[in-house]
Amino acid sequence: MSLESCVDVLVIGAGPAGLMSANALAMAGVDVRVIDQRPTKLTVGQADGIQSRTIEVWQSYGLAERLIREGNQVYMSAFYAPNERGEIECTKRERLVTPPTARFPFIVTLHQAAIESILLDSMSQRGVKVDRPVVPSVIEVSEDVEELASMSSYPVKVTLEHLDAVGDSIKTESVRAKFVIGADGAHSWVRRALGIPMEGEHTDSIWGVIDVKPDTDLPDIRKLTKIQSINGTCMIIPREDDIVRLYIQLSGGDIIDPSTGRVDKSRTSPEKLFEVARKMFQPFELRTSTDVNWLLVGQRIASRYSVRERVFIAGDACHTHSPKAGQGMNASMNDSHNLAWKLSQVLRGWASPSFLKTYELERRQFAQDLIAFDKEYSVLFTGKPRTVENQNGLSHENFFRASKKFGGFITGLDVQYAPSTLVNAKHQGCATNLVIGQRMLPQIFVRAADARPVQIQDMLPADIRFKVLVFTGILTDKQIANVNSLATQLSKPSSFLQKYAADGDVSSVFDIITIVAGRKEEANFLVVPLLFREHWSKVLLDDADVMRSRGGHGYESFGIDPAAITFVIVRPDGYVGMVAPSTAVDDVDRYFSSFLIPRGLCSS
Amino acid sequence: MSLESCVDVLVIGAGPAGLMSANALAMAGVDVRVIDQRPTKLTVGQADGIQSRTIEVWQSYGLAERLIREGNQVYMSAFYAPNERGEIECTKRERLVTPPTARFPFIVTLHQAAIESILLDSMSQRGVKVDRPVVPSVIEVSEDVEELASMSSYPVKVTLEHLDAVGDSIKTESVRAKFVIGADGAHSWVRRALGIPMEGEHTDSIWGVIDVKPDTDLPDIRKLTKIQSINGTCMIIPREDDIVRLYIQLSGGDIIDPSTGRVDKSRTSPEKLFEVARKMFQPFELRTSTDVNWLLVGQRIASRYSVRERVFIAGDACHTHSPKAGQGMNASMNDSHNLAWKLSQVLRGWASPSFLKTYELERRQFAQDLIAFDKEYSVLFTGKPRTVENQNGLSHENFFRASKKFGGFITGLDVQYAPSTLVNAKHQGCATNLVIGQRMLPQIFVRAADARPVQIQDMLPADIRFKVLVFTGILTDKQIANVNSLATQLSKPSSFLQKYAADGDVSSVFDIITIVAGRKEEANFLVVPLLFREHWSKVLLDDADVMRSRGGHGYESFGIDPAAITFVIVRPDGYVGMVAPSTAVDDVDRYFSSFLIPRGLCSS
Repeated sequence: MSLESCVDVLVIGAGPAGLMSANALAMAGVDVRVIDQRPTKLTVGQADGIQSRTIEVWQSYGLAERLIREGNQVYMSAFYAPNERGEIECTKRERLVTPPTARFPFIVTLHQAAIESILLDSMSQRGVKVDRPVVPSVIEVSEDVEELASMSSYPVKVTLEHLDAVGDSIKTESVRAKFVIGADGAHSWVRRALGIPMEGEHTDSIWGVIDVKPDTDLPDIRKLTKIQSINGTCMIIPREDDIVRLYIQLSGGDIIDPSTGRVDKSRTSPEKLFEVARKMFQPFELRTSTDVNWLLVGQRIASRYSVRERVFIAGDACHTHSPKAGQGMNASMNDSHNLAWKLSQVLRGWASPSFLKTYELERRQFAQDLIAFDKEYSVLFTGKPRTVENQNGLSHENFFRASKKFGGFITGLDVQYAPSTLVNAKHQGCATNLVIGQRMLPQIFVRAADARPVQIQDMLPADIRFKVLVFTGILTDKQIANVNSLATQLSKPSSFLQKYAADGDVSSVFDIITIVAGRKEEANFLVVPLLFREHWSKVLLDDADVMRSRGGHGYESFGIDPAAITFVIVRPDGYVGMVAPSTAVDDVDRYFSSFLIPRGLCSS
Repeated sequence: MSLESCVDVLVIGAGPAGLMSANALAMAGVDVRVIDQRPTKLTVGQADGIQSRTIEVWQSYGLAERLIREGNQVYMSAFYAPNERGEIECTKRERLVTPPTARFPFIVTLHQAAIESILLDSMSQRGVKVDRPVVPSVIEVSEDVEELASMSSYPVKVTLEHLDAVGDSIKTESVRAKFVIGADGAHSWVRRALGIPMEGEHTDSIWGVIDVKPDTDLPDIRKLTKIQSINGTCMIIPREDDIVRLYIQLSGGDIIDPSTGRVDKSRTSPEKLFEVARKMFQPFELRTSTDVNWLLVGQRIASRYSVRERVFIAGDACHTHSPKAGQGMNASMNDSHNLAWKLSQVLRGWASPSFLKTYELERRQFAQDLIAFDKEYSVLFTGKPRTVENQNGLSHENFFRASKKFGGFITGLDVQYAPSTLVNAKHQGCATNLVIGQRMLPQIFVRAADARPVQIQDMLPADIRFKVLVFTGILTDKQIANVNSLATQLSKPSSFLQKYAADGDVSSVFDIITIVAGRKEEANFLVVPLLFREHWSKVLLDDADVMRSRGGHGYESFGIDPAAITFVIVRPDGYVGMVAPSTAVDDVDRYFSSFLIPRGLCSS
């Protein structure tokens, strides 16, 4: 039996990158199908931590609460180095997430199966389930220019094999897709089938990984602790329940078969790894072991992320790197987060297909930065510790400086997308601290109508709409007149707010949020023109909450002048796309007109 | 058909008081049954706000998150009074919850059906459902002294009628119970059947209540707004979604039938009420009406809350009062919260039945205070507003002073139980700001092992165990020696920690939490003796979180000397029962021995 079908987006692979894509597309109402070769979902699985920025991204899909509740939160790091007797002792304890703008000042650690379950449950609420065990066997992308240009065509053809087919059930299936996302891991079939080469070194270092419920007198077992001992380097990552993951650096001699030059797992065992860790802990005790896992990672990156902007690869399929900074799953999820809203906008006919090129532009640059970072960071793990005999060795100060230097990168909080169609830095001076191309900073405001404190990031859900933040400044009579005249201007059919939405329904494409500089005891939000307050909950005040413990000083934090009127354009993925003074409406119009399609001109 | 059965606790009535009792008992593992005369659960229903303290109580049962998510939060109040033209204008806006120690600085408003659903869902997770429609027809309490003294007897006999019985199904049932809770509302059958008279006036004032989705230019429609107009008094209470509840004070002439002296609802209508409100709003517009409800409440209190400490009444069954301060549901829930853990401890054989007398002592005093407060507060609503003609009328300053004066009472945050077996104020000086008999104050500490910020109230769940908080102070070497010697002392079989728990399992009866004065970068929690750290999560530090935005200065806030070792005993309902210096272990022992039963001496 065979079958032919069509789908808007086919996602190949149901790991973190694939599920993140599939869930985002499902939430955007896109016709999406996801396949995976595994017969069932993960029940265990390894995981790195979910970094601060990734938690913000999960929050924008409404999923962070469960992630935080089910996971463990790591707030502190500790460093251990050998003393003059060769025994390790704590040299430093500090906060783990160093950027001062962190909304979530911790890493969430949770096993991969639990993380994937959250995405699977969210997808399933939108009626999307993973089709498994299914593998692709053939992929073809049309080269026809007209077909590639039309959003009504299905230029990618994929043949699927149903691995559990028996008897008369469907075994081979032909799927025609508008877009395909290859999220099928480090050994990506999609990448190889399309002949995309990987660049970079093959092997970095070898880590043994064991999960234990430790009985120890090391007081920092519930912190992210780096031990540099005379017996080697070990990282402690506390996880959910009372589990702790130990990353133990191995030397090639421990594990590589000299006859083949390849890793031979039979050369070690959980017991041997535990014994290695036990020595690194001395003089502290370490008892009790439970489980074992493996990691062995090279540092490589795909030369391209897309074929004709119809097939995209994401996650480990396009970059692999060592586990030291815990980026793996984070990079994958953020690839998908970057891609999904762009595909959704193109499929709805809002945006021009050409802006899909920004996916590779933004995410491949990130992967390159990641690998450069990783190389520099690796030295800290492979180098010998400073001891009486080796005064040139690494000290905790090296780690400390590295975490200061790289904190913004490791946490994802300072990741910055380069100028492009989507990132326009022309008027950066209007909001000096909202770096264009970086994520929108968290800040507590209070709602004007009821003084409820709200986190501005929670007003920016990943709902594929651009958010137009109107900072009205202080509403003097003169400013009210200016705001009213701006509203009149933006109500004209030629304005950017009107021309991309069908039937004048501005809120279908844009979400307008108004932020007034004023005190909750005095401000009357009803003076804000109706265009800028679709609902009473959309007007915020830059004031502290009733307890004076949260919020206030937002204009100051953002570097916005309360005497001016300022636009902040936040992309659907939460990154600042543009800021502009109200006198530069034309520039805002040019920004949107470079990728949005005016209504009536959508491709059919 | 008829049936005979036994149950430990029979709860009559599934309104807020009954469900709160039933859920607390179900969570404590008590054999409980709850009946209600209504054939189905509420689908709509009126509700007052859930006050700040009641939200804390819900949090202690793990239920506040859903309550807050589903409900609306009211943070601010506003006052309107007539100007010289007789039109209302805003005279004051201020925060609604005035006590500085509020953890939840708002009121949650949500319709009663949604509130009850949360309790029903929680009960149902423990296998307890409401048996309905069922009414009691006979109740008898044994007078036999021996039977009443034994915890293995079932001295209350209740006959139940199954209202939907047809054919051969059971119609009449005889239930023998150890305890009965009459939570059957203002017209309580239980109260009347046991001949408990109500005391107090019958009628206070008459309020018409309408729920509207208003279209208005009054800017404070999403605040708790009191309007004193020349056309009468109105209260605005914003609710979930965009609904607003209007309480409209009616004069007797509007609604009372002069021939009977009773309220005659047919004399008004939603439309008429809305018209009254519309006039009060002038010069502001008010349009759109949807639903109507009613309230008519007198101020009365039952003369007794218990019959032989075997039948208890709770909620509206023992006190009714006007809706002005929104206490109704709060008082009821807190009755149940006070009673449930006491019944659970007695049923487990931990505590002596005589301490059940503290239920009436504590909650009847509260109801008396409530009615006294209500009378004083009522004047603000029945009085005429200050106008040009009436300079002696009430101004917003009267409201303002009243909310300052009564804020601690309205919110429930300053409710204080009088000295009794359970409230021992002898050593108040050891923790000057933790008022013995009041709730344990909220405070953020960080966990010593992982620096995670925790709210101390969240370490005090309503799990029927007493919480023993050990404030060790600063752990100098000398102090460590003192803490160790205290642990040795409390490990002896004669100590209060050991003698009430079977098989030396201290944590079955007490939950010990240790709070060290120290910084997260330095403190080693492993120096705390094992008796005081059952798990690594049980040791807290009095330090700020990694962002320095929450926590710290807990010793100072509580008025505890960091050079001393101090016990704070928190009752299972979250109220401070006792504080004591470590040198007064004998007093702590006397406190517990006045109501707890040493192991081996439990009644069988």
